[in-house]
Amino acid sequence: MREFIPPATRFVDLPDGFPMKRGGTLHGARIGYQTYGRPSPARDVVLILTGLSADAHPASHADDPKPGWWESMLGPGKPIDTDRWYVICVNSLGSCKGSTGPASIDPRTGEPYRLGFPDIAIEDIADAAAHTVRALGFERLACVIGASMGGMSALSLLARHGIARNHINISGAVHSSPFSIAIRSLQREAVRCDPHWNQGRYDAERYPRHGMLLARKLGMATYRSAQEWESRFGRARLTRERPAEDDPFGPEFEVEGYLDFHARRFLEGFDPNSYLYLSRSIDRFDLGESCGGTAEAALAGLRLDRALVMGVETDILFPVRQQRQIAEGLAAGGTDVRFLPMESPQGHDAFLVDTDRFGPPIAKFLSSV
Amino acid sequence: MREFIPPATRFVDLPDGFPMKRGGTLHGARIGYQTYGRPSPARDVVLILTGLSADAHPASHADDPKPGWWESMLGPGKPIDTDRWYVICVNSLGSCKGSTGPASIDPRTGEPYRLGFPDIAIEDIADAAAHTVRALGFERLACVIGASMGGMSALSLLARHGIARNHINISGAVHSSPFSIAIRSLQREAVRCDPHWNQGRYDAERYPRHGMLLARKLGMATYRSAQEWESRFGRARLTRERPAEDDPFGPEFEVEGYLDFHARRFLEGFDPNSYLYLSRSIDRFDLGESCGGTAEAALAGLRLDRALVMGVETDILFPVRQQRQIAEGLAAGGTDVRFLPMESPQGHDAFLVDTDRFGPPIAKFLSSV
Repeated sequence: MREFIPPATRFVDLPDGFPMKRGGTLHGARIGYQTYGRPSPARDVVLILTGLSADAHPASHADDPKPGWWESMLGPGKPIDTDRWYVICVNSLGSCKGSTGPASIDPRTGEPYRLGFPDIAIEDIADAAAHTVRALGFERLACVIGASMGGMSALSLLARHGIARNHINISGAVHSSPFSIAIRSLQREAVRCDPHWNQGRYDAERYPRHGMLLARKLGMATYRSAQEWESRFGRARLTRERPAEDDPFGPEFEVEGYLDFHARRFLEGFDPNSYLYLSRSIDRFDLGESCGGTAEAALAGLRLDRALVMGVETDILFPVRQQRQIAEGLAAGGTDVRFLPMESPQGHDAFLVDTDRFGPPIAKFLSSV
Repeated sequence: MREFIPPATRFVDLPDGFPMKRGGTLHGARIGYQTYGRPSPARDVVLILTGLSADAHPASHADDPKPGWWESMLGPGKPIDTDRWYVICVNSLGSCKGSTGPASIDPRTGEPYRLGFPDIAIEDIADAAAHTVRALGFERLACVIGASMGGMSALSLLARHGIARNHINISGAVHSSPFSIAIRSLQREAVRCDPHWNQGRYDAERYPRHGMLLARKLGMATYRSAQEWESRFGRARLTRERPAEDDPFGPEFEVEGYLDFHARRFLEGFDPNSYLYLSRSIDRFDLGESCGGTAEAALAGLRLDRALVMGVETDILFPVRQQRQIAEGLAAGGTDVRFLPMESPQGHDAFLVDTDRFGPPIAKFLSSV
């Protein structure tokens, strides 16, 4: 599915027989990544681990001028300053945007893995990222930055590989809350209920379009906040005066049109099976369980100099108490922690859009490490 | 669809040619209701208007010992004391639990209305309830009680018919927020995406079971609160150790099993087209628009002696600021208002289950009117 891969993406091969946490091994697998800045003695390395749907293209690039998903945050003179840092962004194992995942060809069969792909754990994503960084010649990172699912992957990376001195965790968690599990479970159900999903054996002709649209809209309804939508949409109607004759229950309000528009854009770029696998990995991740004890013990066991932990008061998916838990756990282990609960109205997605609030503390933190 | 109708339900015929707010008329339509207590000079009348999915059986009854949806709240010596009040509970027009709705037979064709049913507005539900009360011989009510959608219907009843001296509004609103519109829009989309919905032409064999389950689960995810689920389920797994072989993405966590169990129970009792119609009526209702001005002006124009307005701090669907708006609007018009924002962890559904918090203020209010 080459069409999903940003053009500046490069690749690192995973070792043959790459072991997966919950069983199975991968053969001929690779990880997609992009880099920013040039490696030099003066430039330490910063690693970015992403949310579920992001690719390895956070910002425009000499080889790809298309704006990335963190365009305002990353580049020369920006909060993650590529004049100062050599930045690596890794596409998660299991994604469909460069790294090997369920849509990739299984070398044993010559066909896409589909549901034959082994179960993916956040720990596998972390292991693959650690391998990528080492394959690029770096044993020690100045900082690992992870947001949302990437915040989980980053904690797992630190617990399993301890290869970073500093850490920025944004809207992350040591495990998922039952509400967020419920919301993701319903997204997966929406995809699977679409007859075109067909146990993962869809194609371009018979594609689970309705299920993916519904799943993505539901995701979006929990990525922002009710407050933001109140001020942004209120009860404004779509310009079409009445619902279409052929769809009497179709969208009438602007908020419905907004969800529909953005879900359709997403649909073009994401493999449904990959969505199912990565979504489930978020539900299942449990840092404490993964480290054989409590989350508190796992956090206190991380060897970090400094950490910046950020969350958003209006986030209903990764509520701010979960970031407080990370901050307190790291501090208990001796890490110098700055915890920043933000007032942003933009909920879980705030880090993607609210650069005014997120940029300065990230810049300040990085300039001090 | 007689199987949905509680056995003690009685019926009032609506006048032939009953006019619907957004066009169309109903012929041969009826409203289902139940009564509690006996009418007598000593007993004033209390009317209960319900949420979307409720029937007219809030409590067990001489003719139907089955516990009702408000069993702990209604009966002799209970907060809504049937030794003191003659209580009427009306099934909403458009429902499938006794009142005429999309599943009813259209007398013009001898077939179910399905999508041929006229658009249903909250105002139509209010008009039908007013007709029912008058047909039973009552021109003036001591109190109208409405919760959730019933809170909207009650405000509309008061604005259009002014037939109650006092009012209890629970987790209601003068209109829906964009977040709640989005959530209901996705529920309707889930039903409509099920191929068995078939533009409303399903039957027992080809029934939109998957869509209704998904819709109901999504509703439930917003009826309670993340806090409640955190303490109730945490990350507990279903006893089945691993997902079923034939459904690798099926439920694993208790919260998923809980949603599934309750959604299946709901499925047995609710007509999908009725769900679509009533759900849309909640999105569209706007008390201000309905009264030709602002919501504030409409509330201030209601002629009430006293009102009790209750909401729940953890409600994400009808957030407590919406109940504050009702309370302030009524007070501005001279109504003696008590506003009670409750700390209950049970979100929008708290009034159904948290009798300890809701019972005493309701009892106290009713004893004082």
